[in-house]
Amino acid sequence: MASGRKAVVLLSGGLDSATVLAIAIHEGYQAHALSFRYGQRHVVELAAARRVAEKLGATGHQVVDIDLRAFGGSALTDDAIAVPHGALGADPGIPVTYVPARNTIFLSFALAWAEVLGASDVFLGVSAVDYSGYPDCRPEYIAAYETMANLATKAAVEGRQRLTIHTPLIRLSKAQTIARGLELGVDYGLTHSCYEPDGTRPCGTCDSCLLRARGFAELGLTDPAAV
Amino acid sequence: MASGRKAVVLLSGGLDSATVLAIAIHEGYQAHALSFRYGQRHVVELAAARRVAEKLGATGHQVVDIDLRAFGGSALTDDAIAVPHGALGADPGIPVTYVPARNTIFLSFALAWAEVLGASDVFLGVSAVDYSGYPDCRPEYIAAYETMANLATKAAVEGRQRLTIHTPLIRLSKAQTIARGLELGVDYGLTHSCYEPDGTRPCGTCDSCLLRARGFAELGLTDPAAV
Repeated sequence: MASGRKAVVLLSGGLDSATVLAIAIHEGYQAHALSFRYGQRHVVELAAARRVAEKLGATGHQVVDIDLRAFGGSALTDDAIAVPHGALGADPGIPVTYVPARNTIFLSFALAWAEVLGASDVFLGVSAVDYSGYPDCRPEYIAAYETMANLATKAAVEGRQRLTIHTPLIRLSKAQTIARGLELGVDYGLTHSCYEPDGTRPCGTCDSCLLRARGFAELGLTDPAAV
Repeated sequence: MASGRKAVVLLSGGLDSATVLAIAIHEGYQAHALSFRYGQRHVVELAAARRVAEKLGATGHQVVDIDLRAFGGSALTDDAIAVPHGALGADPGIPVTYVPARNTIFLSFALAWAEVLGASDVFLGVSAVDYSGYPDCRPEYIAAYETMANLATKAAVEGRQRLTIHTPLIRLSKAQTIARGLELGVDYGLTHSCYEPDGTRPCGTCDSCLLRARGFAELGLTDPAAV
């Protein structure tokens, strides 16, 4: 522990990324949290990101503005596409809440910040278990990103930094993620996951709310953010 | 020619990307030009991008705002780092005008827009010949990016779009690029490449100006933008 190496941690303000931030800090990294105002419906998650970064002890926190509404194409960034409610996994394909190339864009900014900070480690809270519909949450995607990143930067090419993308949740179910976070003292009451909240109050019926509720239920617990 | 397929063309407003836009249109693509206001010193290049897109007949043109000044680390985005003048290639390593992960970030937005447009082709004006100092201008980087991109998106995973990144200048010298552009009717007087212009007037002494001047000189021509 406490090696003091710097890492960039992608932090949405949701359950998964809060857990990953706790893991990175527990592993001894100086965690630099990175969030995005990207035109998401649920921009209240950024207030959650600020609370979580402060409470868990992130070394720094940046919020970068990028307007993905300019492109649209997702229920999360395009008002013409409705967020589904009440039927987890009813849509057989990749959900309409998929945002085109979102993780690729987020990781690219993390790569830039890591290079400037002199960090060799990036943490990302993707899971291929509970929500395997998103292509950019799969291990083969992450591996290909890492290969590309190590050809992309001055730091990598000069041999100073070989980037590693850490995805500690990739093989965990939602319940396993929650159990790990609780061990590390994460206060899930500070987090926000809902895709279409009423103000700051989660709807309770979108896929993200249903997945959270199921995770807590499997542990015999109630989601503190849903109370 | 005139297949009418859509392509995203990264367009800075400089000599190389203007040539690439002309090539994409000549090959029959409906070219959707994509530019970035990223905190660059030489933001006047965006006015050039608008002129070039209009003159060459791009189907659409988007300018996306992203603030790379938040990270710094480059002479182009950080006022604390000076742009070198008067000595092309004097710095033996990767130039200080390298912007951390810039092409990775730009390609990621192109990937997002391509997916929403239903485009399978992205054009990028990198060259590994004249300016081989930038790691994200090399063929091995482009190949790795393409591999990653084809694991990243819903469109690729569902088999609807297999992304190809076209880099028609990657093996061309600056003079060869100019010769190709002139064949296709590019008006280089509309373009802007200088890293540190005085207003809209190129300095004539930064690496980018010197490379341009050398390219035109090899063809026995004078740069119309430097007159």
